[in-house]
Amino acid sequence: MFFASDNAGPVHPSVMNRVIAANTAHQMPYGKDEIMDEVRDRIREVFEAPEAAVYLVATGTAANVLALACYTQPWQTTFCSKVSHIQMDECNAPEFYAGGAKLTLIDTNDKMTPDALEAAIAGQAVGNVHGAQPGAVSITQVTERGSVHTLEELSALTAVAKRHDLPVHLDGARFANAMVSLGCSAAEMSWKAGVDVVSFGGTKNGCMGVEAVVFFDPSKAWEFELRRKRGAHLFSKHRFLSAQMAGYLQDDAFLQIAQEANANAAYLADGLRSRGASFLHEPKANMIFASWPRKVHQKMQNAGAKYYLWGATLEGDPDEPIAARLVCDWSVTRDQIDSFLSHF
Amino acid sequence: MFFASDNAGPVHPSVMNRVIAANTAHQMPYGKDEIMDEVRDRIREVFEAPEAAVYLVATGTAANVLALACYTQPWQTTFCSKVSHIQMDECNAPEFYAGGAKLTLIDTNDKMTPDALEAAIAGQAVGNVHGAQPGAVSITQVTERGSVHTLEELSALTAVAKRHDLPVHLDGARFANAMVSLGCSAAEMSWKAGVDVVSFGGTKNGCMGVEAVVFFDPSKAWEFELRRKRGAHLFSKHRFLSAQMAGYLQDDAFLQIAQEANANAAYLADGLRSRGASFLHEPKANMIFASWPRKVHQKMQNAGAKYYLWGATLEGDPDEPIAARLVCDWSVTRDQIDSFLSHF
Amino acid sequence: MFFASDNAGPVHPSVMNRVIAANTAHQMPYGKDEIMDEVRDRIREVFEAPEAAVYLVATGTAANVLALACYTQPWQTTFCSKVSHIQMDECNAPEFYAGGAKLTLIDTNDKMTPDALEAAIAGQAVGNVHGAQPGAVSITQVTERGSVHTLEELSALTAVAKRHDLPVHLDGARFANAMVSLGCSAAEMSWKAGVDVVSFGGTKNGCMGVEAVVFFDPSKAWEFELRRKRGAHLFSKHRFLSAQMAGYLQDDAFLQIAQEANANAAYLADGLRSRGASFLHEPKANMIFASWPRKVHQKMQNAGAKYYLWGATLEGDPDEPIAARLVCDWSVTRDQIDSFLSHF
Amino acid sequence: MFFASDNAGPVHPSVMNRVIAANTAHQMPYGKDEIMDEVRDRIREVFEAPEAAVYLVATGTAANVLALACYTQPWQTTFCSKVSHIQMDECNAPEFYAGGAKLTLIDTNDKMTPDALEAAIAGQAVGNVHGAQPGAVSITQVTERGSVHTLEELSALTAVAKRHDLPVHLDGARFANAMVSLGCSAAEMSWKAGVDVVSFGGTKNGCMGVEAVVFFDPSKAWEFELRRKRGAHLFSKHRFLSAQMAGYLQDDAFLQIAQEANANAAYLADGLRSRGASFLHEPKANMIFASWPRKVHQKMQNAGAKYYLWGATLEGDPDEPIAARLVCDWSVTRDQIDSFLSHF
Repeated sequence: MFFASDNAGPVHPSVMNRVIAANTAHQMPYGKDEIMDEVRDRIREVFEAPEAAVYLVATGTAANVLALACYTQPWQTTFCSKVSHIQMDECNAPEFYAGGAKLTLIDTNDKMTPDALEAAIAGQAVGNVHGAQPGAVSITQVTERGSVHTLEELSALTAVAKRHDLPVHLDGARFANAMVSLGCSAAEMSWKAGVDVVSFGGTKNGCMGVEAVVFFDPSKAWEFELRRKRGAHLFSKHRFLSAQMAGYLQDDAFLQIAQEANANAAYLADGLRSRGASFLHEPKANMIFASWPRKVHQKMQNAGAKYYLWGATLEGDPDEPIAARLVCDWSVTRDQIDSFLSHF
Repeated sequence: MFFASDNAGPVHPSVMNRVIAANTAHQMPYGKDEIMDEVRDRIREVFEAPEAAVYLVATGTAANVLALACYTQPWQTTFCSKVSHIQMDECNAPEFYAGGAKLTLIDTNDKMTPDALEAAIAGQAVGNVHGAQPGAVSITQVTERGSVHTLEELSALTAVAKRHDLPVHLDGARFANAMVSLGCSAAEMSWKAGVDVVSFGGTKNGCMGVEAVVFFDPSKAWEFELRRKRGAHLFSKHRFLSAQMAGYLQDDAFLQIAQEANANAAYLADGLRSRGASFLHEPKANMIFASWPRKVHQKMQNAGAKYYLWGATLEGDPDEPIAARLVCDWSVTRDQIDSFLSHF
Repeated sequence: MFFASDNAGPVHPSVMNRVIAANTAHQMPYGKDEIMDEVRDRIREVFEAPEAAVYLVATGTAANVLALACYTQPWQTTFCSKVSHIQMDECNAPEFYAGGAKLTLIDTNDKMTPDALEAAIAGQAVGNVHGAQPGAVSITQVTERGSVHTLEELSALTAVAKRHDLPVHLDGARFANAMVSLGCSAAEMSWKAGVDVVSFGGTKNGCMGVEAVVFFDPSKAWEFELRRKRGAHLFSKHRFLSAQMAGYLQDDAFLQIAQEANANAAYLADGLRSRGASFLHEPKANMIFASWPRKVHQKMQNAGAKYYLWGATLEGDPDEPIAARLVCDWSVTRDQIDSFLSHF
Repeated sequence: MFFASDNAGPVHPSVMNRVIAANTAHQMPYGKDEIMDEVRDRIREVFEAPEAAVYLVATGTAANVLALACYTQPWQTTFCSKVSHIQMDECNAPEFYAGGAKLTLIDTNDKMTPDALEAAIAGQAVGNVHGAQPGAVSITQVTERGSVHTLEELSALTAVAKRHDLPVHLDGARFANAMVSLGCSAAEMSWKAGVDVVSFGGTKNGCMGVEAVVFFDPSKAWEFELRRKRGAHLFSKHRFLSAQMAGYLQDDAFLQIAQEANANAAYLADGLRSRGASFLHEPKANMIFASWPRKVHQKMQNAGAKYYLWGATLEGDPDEPIAARLVCDWSVTRDQIDSFLSHF
């Protein structure tokens, strides 16, 4: 009964098998391995972007901050949701990698609205040397609250950015989960919607530790390579990053794994809903934010269930509903979910 | 016939098997996995340092620059050989992670001498606000030229540092190869010789991508954790770093793998020597710098051998001896070496 | 009729005369001048802090960011008002000097409340490696809106900081104006109220370009000296910074100048009030935020008055009141103010 | 008898009078003052560069590091003499402002040779992601050893840079002293010789604290303005920087002042030479490196002379010649020099 995160489950066999298969003989290091050639081609195919510059790193934070740094000057500010991963969960890595650039936080508990983004950008006057200059816009898809921007919502946000001539980064740690949720293509959810660079996540969706950074403007390629090395993120035995990504993409495994994770979450959400839980955000992918009585939480946790309470503790009125965050990965079983729900 | 580097070979079975075994169920992320507890205990045991703070990262550069940053203020300078990895091969990562601190380069083609180190430190006056302040001393063992400091040499260098009250970092990307070469213990080659923090390499010696940073002063622990996260080097599915290191340390696999690599290099060196090659540095571990006629290089490369020429090209007098760097990992076979040598 | 800022007026004779007097013979450079000895003694006397470490720089931003950097690790966040100078007007200098540390913005249009500060600090969990760690608290006195914290308000804010074991910085670009407004001593408005380091402004209050940084904890002295030099803020002909500050402090000139500036602003505010202007903030020092009809603004600006409209432009309903910021320095005359008011 | 530095003398009347004259009424802050318009025009005239972007800062280090930062990426290295000011005397400010870029030191005790520069640049392979990428070349004129590059020497160095497509910075802290020494124009010693950006010094040559940064490529203008503000080097009461520079340039005062300083040094050098001193470098401007017996130094220092011994102390054989550095500014008198020489 592990719902604490999708970053804690096992590696999917489609990924692990490819890693094991890659473990023969020598391969040129530092991204010159042959598997990387395959990965590059495959990602360009998946994104329908034959010119894209494609790189692999091992952590989601590395993908985000290296991608952003390529679009940020140290005197600029990046616009993002105040609950975004780059603000909440990366320990100043975005500022570190961008030489002390700021993040300007949009006041929202989930998605940014175009109006709020517009107001934030307008608040940083271009040409006023005293204030931070407007930099990139970073959007998270799936959001940190388990929501998914529709393609129209994405385009409305990127349109604001484009109106101000600002680049757009997509934090796609759960990119595949969002694709499955929307039933759209990778291209539709990225460059066709106005995105310039994507952190294309693998780790949370069945990989061991690999994320792709996909630049639709290949002129960023060499700068990224230098930033990656300078950040100490260039792997010598790079083939094992490549192999993960190759397995992840083969036969659309990434979509299948995300489909399983999303379906697990939907099954869990349905079970919670039918038992009277209320939802802070309507779950659209593999994350759930819901409330139910404290005493039920107590029983679940006594039984060994792992998940995070959200803004509350077990101390207090046993009948009061308190919130929790639950995340399903592909490896969660229906039996585990049923067992969890049985504590209601 | 791959002698280009020890960072390009396959993962040793003792490591890979442990990775595969780790791939069950959920494990707490970000270093809270149970395997990490085992690793921490085992490294403390190996280093005879029950209080050591122990962390894992995925690249050697990350280990070096995060370790050094914990001992460096931005207005300081780190003393190192001008051929050290941190100077030559890390694309300004040491400067990046230490906020713009300098490296002061000791003019040597291999090991630093205590006198040269002393002179360099004395050249940076403590208390002169105009110049960089003296910071850490970084020593590489095995050196970038395949030499190995004796314990006496190590102690002589650290004694200079201690006389100036400076901390000592050991870049041990090939730590196990040096241990095997010296026949000494990990403690003798580190804290007993005056070292404060070690980059304990795994990647080049049969792992997939894992290095331990071992602080003998555990007061650096929390700062390291913050620096690692801020550097985007904290793995969520950390168990797969832990598992590599656990397999690497189990039953002293790390020493056995290094023994194989060193023995391969010795076999190759003997073969080269008996055929008339001359050596730029006396090989002590798994790296060889040697010279032989250009025409023989040409034959070897025509046959598909992979290694780096050193300060020369295939253009020129066919009878002129030119230098090459050759590195053996554990996976190189005697047949491959014999085949290589057959081109003489 | 210049009310655009107090950073644009002439240097007060008490300051300029001392600069001129200092221009004889040689003086040791880099802060070793004899006038600096006098300044150090005098500031310690003014602040009743015989152990204080005292330094001079030429800009207010330099004072703020160097002072803060001494109390900030790169993985921390500084708590400040969202309208503070360090957030709005320093082009990411705080982040640059603190190695990419964040600013956490308290949502207020003027002073921070203790509750809001408490909530902000509590929002950055100590020991959570994923988020920024709590760093310094920075308070602005006079605020950017022309308000002045009472000593009780100051103490209430610093008490919150102390409860969390956080250091407190005071941005005192208009420190003297606040002292005059409160009728208190420098000690009462700084260390007696829980402040650890002060940016003690001179430039806006009649100097040419000088600010003191006053550390009540002298253990920060050497770090500050290194940071100042590394920031390129150490003057060789430092005596001309010293001389400004010496003249500024002699016979309490700084208080007399501030008294004149505040009195000018009070006179202007009275005139505006009596003509029906409304005030966004009650003016307490030498800054005024007030509203009156657009058509009157138009007349004033046509007559050459210099000041900033605040969130509005001259385009629109002529009878609609729109806001303006007006700042008085010591050099503004009553005739100029009367002339300005005559346009009502 | 003050020969310790030219950064410790009084401000020349031509400069000070203009500062005093500027102290009337209000002037727009932050470089929008009218005197800056005059300065910009005058510098463009002096440099015969009608499109040049011209900025003022208050310290030589600020001029150097801000100018260099505009031409340096964090993964690059700047090529300079190992005795340059940016290496020896700026406490890692170049690295700080350039985000952790390196300095590559040319091994020379004075001027770089084109061959040594060529070798250094060739040592940093373009396109090798592991090493620092080649960045700017920085040349010091007058050198830190009191030498002056001829125009041919300058052009030979910049030709090496241009061959590698690298920008060239000139540290002209003593630019006027070099112009006077060479009898050339500012244009000949800068853009006509292949220089892209100049730190045009005022402080050491009779100003209070002002340096101009002159970009011959005006496309760097806005970046410089942002970097200057972010570095906390933008003055609000900027007119007092402008006024210094205006006085300095008026009627070629800067050349007259330099002429006096150089002539003082020549007079001193002649006196030393006639008394048997030997010279480490042939003095060409206002700095002297010479040796004479220790016992004479002792007498001079007993008499209150201020200058630096160079690599030696007063302890030792009284008859042994030891070296000293002596610098003359314009304010040194012939009587002082005669008095100094009388101790021989």
